[in-house]
Amino acid sequence: MGEEFLQHLYEKQRHVEAVPSNKIIAEWAFNLLDLIYPERVASPSYTLSEIRTRFLQLENELVRLMDATKACKECNNQSIARRFFEDVPELYRIMNTDVEAILNGDPASISTFEIIRTYPGFLTISLYRIAHALLKLEVPLIPRILTEHAHSLTGIDIHPGAQVGEYLYIDHGTGIVIGETTVIGNHVKLYQGVTLGALSVEKFMANTKRHPTLEDHVIIYAGATILGGDTVIGHDCVIGGNVWITKSVPPGSTVYHQSTIKVIEPNRA
Amino acid sequence: MGEEFLQHLYEKQRHVEAVPSNKIIAEWAFNLLDLIYPERVASPSYTLSEIRTRFLQLENELVRLMDATKACKECNNQSIARRFFEDVPELYRIMNTDVEAILNGDPASISTFEIIRTYPGFLTISLYRIAHALLKLEVPLIPRILTEHAHSLTGIDIHPGAQVGEYLYIDHGTGIVIGETTVIGNHVKLYQGVTLGALSVEKFMANTKRHPTLEDHVIIYAGATILGGDTVIGHDCVIGGNVWITKSVPPGSTVYHQSTIKVIEPNRA
Amino acid sequence: MGEEFLQHLYEKQRHVEAVPSNKIIAEWAFNLLDLIYPERVASPSYTLSEIRTRFLQLENELVRLMDATKACKECNNQSIARRFFEDVPELYRIMNTDVEAILNGDPASISTFEIIRTYPGFLTISLYRIAHALLKLEVPLIPRILTEHAHSLTGIDIHPGAQVGEYLYIDHGTGIVIGETTVIGNHVKLYQGVTLGALSVEKFMANTKRHPTLEDHVIIYAGATILGGDTVIGHDCVIGGNVWITKSVPPGSTVYHQSTIKVIEPNRA
Amino acid sequence: MGEEFLQHLYEKQRHVEAVPSNKIIAEWAFNLLDLIYPERVASPSYTLSEIRTRFLQLENELVRLMDATKACKECNNQSIARRFFEDVPELYRIMNTDVEAILNGDPASISTFEIIRTYPGFLTISLYRIAHALLKLEVPLIPRILTEHAHSLTGIDIHPGAQVGEYLYIDHGTGIVIGETTVIGNHVKLYQGVTLGALSVEKFMANTKRHPTLEDHVIIYAGATILGGDTVIGHDCVIGGNVWITKSVPPGSTVYHQSTIKVIEPNRA
Amino acid sequence: MGEEFLQHLYEKQRHVEAVPSNKIIAEWAFNLLDLIYPERVASPSYTLSEIRTRFLQLENELVRLMDATKACKECNNQSIARRFFEDVPELYRIMNTDVEAILNGDPASISTFEIIRTYPGFLTISLYRIAHALLKLEVPLIPRILTEHAHSLTGIDIHPGAQVGEYLYIDHGTGIVIGETTVIGNHVKLYQGVTLGALSVEKFMANTKRHPTLEDHVIIYAGATILGGDTVIGHDCVIGGNVWITKSVPPGSTVYHQSTIKVIEPNRA
Amino acid sequence: MGEEFLQHLYEKQRHVEAVPSNKIIAEWAFNLLDLIYPERVASPSYTLSEIRTRFLQLENELVRLMDATKACKECNNQSIARRFFEDVPELYRIMNTDVEAILNGDPASISTFEIIRTYPGFLTISLYRIAHALLKLEVPLIPRILTEHAHSLTGIDIHPGAQVGEYLYIDHGTGIVIGETTVIGNHVKLYQGVTLGALSVEKFMANTKRHPTLEDHVIIYAGATILGGDTVIGHDCVIGGNVWITKSVPPGSTVYHQSTIKVIEPNRA
Repeated sequence: MGEEFLQHLYEKQRHVEAVPSNKIIAEWAFNLLDLIYPERVASPSYTLSEIRTRFLQLENELVRLMDATKACKECNNQSIARRFFEDVPELYRIMNTDVEAILNGDPASISTFEIIRTYPGFLTISLYRIAHALLKLEVPLIPRILTEHAHSLTGIDIHPGAQVGEYLYIDHGTGIVIGETTVIGNHVKLYQGVTLGALSVEKFMANTKRHPTLEDHVIIYAGATILGGDTVIGHDCVIGGNVWITKSVPPGSTVYHQSTIKVIEPNRA
Repeated sequence: MGEEFLQHLYEKQRHVEAVPSNKIIAEWAFNLLDLIYPERVASPSYTLSEIRTRFLQLENELVRLMDATKACKECNNQSIARRFFEDVPELYRIMNTDVEAILNGDPASISTFEIIRTYPGFLTISLYRIAHALLKLEVPLIPRILTEHAHSLTGIDIHPGAQVGEYLYIDHGTGIVIGETTVIGNHVKLYQGVTLGALSVEKFMANTKRHPTLEDHVIIYAGATILGGDTVIGHDCVIGGNVWITKSVPPGSTVYHQSTIKVIEPNRA
Repeated sequence: MGEEFLQHLYEKQRHVEAVPSNKIIAEWAFNLLDLIYPERVASPSYTLSEIRTRFLQLENELVRLMDATKACKECNNQSIARRFFEDVPELYRIMNTDVEAILNGDPASISTFEIIRTYPGFLTISLYRIAHALLKLEVPLIPRILTEHAHSLTGIDIHPGAQVGEYLYIDHGTGIVIGETTVIGNHVKLYQGVTLGALSVEKFMANTKRHPTLEDHVIIYAGATILGGDTVIGHDCVIGGNVWITKSVPPGSTVYHQSTIKVIEPNRA
Repeated sequence: MGEEFLQHLYEKQRHVEAVPSNKIIAEWAFNLLDLIYPERVASPSYTLSEIRTRFLQLENELVRLMDATKACKECNNQSIARRFFEDVPELYRIMNTDVEAILNGDPASISTFEIIRTYPGFLTISLYRIAHALLKLEVPLIPRILTEHAHSLTGIDIHPGAQVGEYLYIDHGTGIVIGETTVIGNHVKLYQGVTLGALSVEKFMANTKRHPTLEDHVIIYAGATILGGDTVIGHDCVIGGNVWITKSVPPGSTVYHQSTIKVIEPNRA
Repeated sequence: MGEEFLQHLYEKQRHVEAVPSNKIIAEWAFNLLDLIYPERVASPSYTLSEIRTRFLQLENELVRLMDATKACKECNNQSIARRFFEDVPELYRIMNTDVEAILNGDPASISTFEIIRTYPGFLTISLYRIAHALLKLEVPLIPRILTEHAHSLTGIDIHPGAQVGEYLYIDHGTGIVIGETTVIGNHVKLYQGVTLGALSVEKFMANTKRHPTLEDHVIIYAGATILGGDTVIGHDCVIGGNVWITKSVPPGSTVYHQSTIKVIEPNRA
Repeated sequence: MGEEFLQHLYEKQRHVEAVPSNKIIAEWAFNLLDLIYPERVASPSYTLSEIRTRFLQLENELVRLMDATKACKECNNQSIARRFFEDVPELYRIMNTDVEAILNGDPASISTFEIIRTYPGFLTISLYRIAHALLKLEVPLIPRILTEHAHSLTGIDIHPGAQVGEYLYIDHGTGIVIGETTVIGNHVKLYQGVTLGALSVEKFMANTKRHPTLEDHVIIYAGATILGGDTVIGHDCVIGGNVWITKSVPPGSTVYHQSTIKVIEPNRA
């Protein structure tokens, strides 16, 4: 290996942005979830005083994570972290609507405990909601690292920029992709493999709405693909499995894929 | 953050069920797999006496995990754990049929060693088989935590309640979903993205058979979806990729999706 | 549990191949990536001398991993490791083309930093490239363990035997499967859920080309499936979402799935 | 090993007091020292807000340690911990006098930094001071565990019950023993191997003053032994090395051991 | 650094004995102590079945430690370990006499709990007793590693070859040295800094009795030195502090050091 | 706790010197010892290439430790580290003379392996020799941290500034203190509790020779104290136990303490 290559790596390294490791960032978020959802913890036993201190600590840690993220030099990280934590009770209220949506929607679910502990859908949604709240406060990089961490754990990819209403239902969820400019209403259900994506993916479109809008009470079954920034799925629509949609659908519609399945039975072959 | 919110979290925490952490539960299962599949271990070198003691230890640990899972207060955990471990040789025999199915079915597989070490399909099946055995002994929560752990590692989601025969073949498997009341025969092959799901997912259906039945020697190619508790795929059927099935198929049938692919060649455009 | 079963496990264990744990092997690869991509590290600060020594160390570790992999007793591991590390600058150059492909192709991407830190596509490609380089040097088992590790993290499964050109674009990627004998040209884009697989998967076909060929500048949208060793997707083709292809497509073609979507609007029902 | 023995251990274990591990208790104290002496930390960088939160945390941890120490069931641990932490600034002031005493007394000392980082004497004194403050608040067992931890690290054994003034100078200190009812004034210097012990060690004497009193400005050289609860070493005394004292010494005295050293020179033998 | 030196280290390393790390060996012994003295553990909660399995495990670990200690190739380690563990109840009985001796002898001791948790004397004695039992079974190196570990923790150095009766009392103990061929009776009390050593330390004396004998009920105060293999301190003797003895002392004697302490009072100077 | 106190700690912390933690510094030295004394390692198996790389790594780590020690801003740490490692073969040669001295001097020692693994004397001497070599290169603080670490492990306190010849024999060693300006010749033997100290310890004497000189082949028995910068113990002297010396002793002398031991036998009482 030539000296030149080593020198190149050395130079590159000296100019690289410094950002805390993905693992540290994810742990911060998991610690926050552990605090508001003690169901996640083996035998939770905090005193009231410990809960209060723990929030202060997590706030300090967030400041430290942001300080270490050199990209944002002029930010008042102390005040951003303060505002984020003031918003935690509201975040918690919304996450609870997601739990309720799963409990009501999945016949196999037994209890809120089981959902909080084991449902990849809820894990991803809750990390997304933390990431989205940080993004709104213009925190750089950390939001994306959080949702990618969720993605690697669950196979569900929600971009932190997406706007998602309350009572979002995601169960298995593997393969779900929700793009950056997606808008989702309340009481929406998404099954595995659903893509809410862009029609065309040219770089110059970076700042336009490229992903669809789903109004309230929409259900999208497994494997369906909805594309395009102008595509609006009206409220109370049901989109069938494997359907490919690039245009808007009026409220209350049912869309399904009229496929021709050919069955060759052995005695008739 | 208001004192009221802190007080709410404190109260909630005091009444939450106590269940050992997902990590601890998963480690127990991995330790069991390490013991019966030394291929998983860097340089296995147990003495006979150590193997014997290791099983006793894992039995003790299972008791401890169940004791810590407060949900089941009246269970005789000692006797449940004993019965589970009496069943381990049979579990092992069945897992070996899964290995054999993959070895025979995947041209890319080189050895049982490679399958045991690297195939996500086998990892998920073996964790499912442990989870299912525990569920049959009415162990609460732990089975679901085990299969969700497998899900997060491999993207394959087998509900612990599903009934699966011997020689199950799953290779890549990402995106496979097998519902709670699914019944699968022997020598079945499932490719990535296959869903064995419910037609309708109303909460009141929780205790009915909502997921399909696959008889022996069925092959289901990538992306196919089989729905409904009354749907029976007869023995020796082959279901093509991306097919969507909600009705039973007679034994020996081949089902494929007659899609209309439109090719626009450049010189003809 | 019978003594016989214990005795069986004991005997099996004594004859099992010894291979370092998957975790150790993956860590080696991640350490290599950390060295050439300091973006992955919280606050990189190596001196030039440390970078040089770190490469020597990683080379020693590779020798140790191969030595511990008993399968290859006659290999000159020292010289294999040396050759691998001589190739690292070229590997690095190619990985950089993958980063560039993502940066140019994804409107949501902000910087190379973000891609290197958070894109599962890049993570999988870079581990695949390391694995493939080792496979070409006939290193046993380690390559497959590396790509399966990537698979479990990202849901993207690239067999180390596949041949992949430069500037490969994979974004979300969940559910992508790229088979052992696939050949991929330069500047190819693959979206989530794409399968590049085998038509028929009989064991006797192990040494033939069973997976398709993609020429330069091919784009394959989400959920498409391309099967068969003789299937060649000509350069500059665009393959639409959910398309199922088992035959060659001439260069420059656009292939899409002419599906019949049925929309039942509420006022018309 | 008989079943009876196992049964005995089982029964014993069920009735044993529960006390957090020595390691956990010591870590709490070291964390407190790290906070007030950042010299102990590799690169201290707390914000003001973090320092404040850290104290709250350490207070919570002390409550938890005391709660886990079942011996004290009726204690109001929350209020004890509060009172301890209110006293920390005063503890800190006194520890600083110890640092100053060493800096002024040891020609080999270079800086307060070196003393805080490396002097076993200071480490032991500071842990003793924390232990003594807890003992005064009637915290059971934890004080003794702290001083024994110091003892095992430095070979200096100060009983938490001893009363020690300000500006205590201990340098190497190995082998120093300071008994439970010892009283030490200000500006006292103790060299290695000094014993401040009891004349007679009958069990019935447990609640009487059994160890000596040292008034202000006393110096005791290496290996000297001062015994007895009525023994008072008056202010400004100097006690020579290896001296054995069981009676009081008037203020300002110099006591030395008139030993007969016999030198046999070779040419005279 | 020359290549020759590296080559030398490489050659040396290839021929060095393999012995498990001191840390691993010490942990084994601490685990055994934790099992028979649950006072050492934060919140002990083993079931009877766990205690039984834990002993089997520790027996297996001892076999493994001995197997890894290459020095003893022909030993039947399985049977040695079995014999050691058969002796554990007797070892435990004797250790309990040591606890009792400290409880009765030290006015500052409050409870057996405090002694087991915090007294360096008891820690050293119990590790010595384990080491001595192993030495009698001719286990190489491990005994010495155990007593040196105790030495480094407490400053008390008991050679594993020493023969020590029941009810040994050691309190602070720092600086105590008990040589290889020392013989100690029952109910003996040793204070800090006591040396039971050899008169002359010529290498050719390795296999002779070089260290003294202490009969029952002997008390030796701080800093006393007893030397020589023929030196017998008769039963019920009391040896004063700092005394230097190289000849036998008849039973029931009191030996003290008639020192000439010179006191210079200030008003008489 | 007042805001003022917190503010004070915050200010202090901001101005404190940054020095890597004692633990990190000690680990560096232990890693170096592990490399040159594979006897310390459980199963050493480096290749020649690994040994070479390991030295480079340790050199880099030393640079990093020195860089992190802000006290020395103008030092060329890279070149200091280089010079230190060039000296390692010589350091190793001298340490081997210490091993040899113990092997020849202690009848209880069995092998060099046992000495390197278990003798606190050798551990302390070897850490001192590393510390002294660093001090000669004017490395600040690190030398003292190393010898204090040894002190806390063994109770033997050798100041890094002391000058010590070859073949130093220390066995148990607890309580040995060797002052900063001590000079020790070759083939010297020191037993436990020996102090080589200063007569008077006024601060203004910091830069003068305050501690004694021991010429070649001197033996000093347990508990002896030699004080004063002008005190020279001539070659081949034997100094008896507990002797207190403040003046020079001609070569070849035997010095002992003519103590009056009073024995009160019971039948004569």
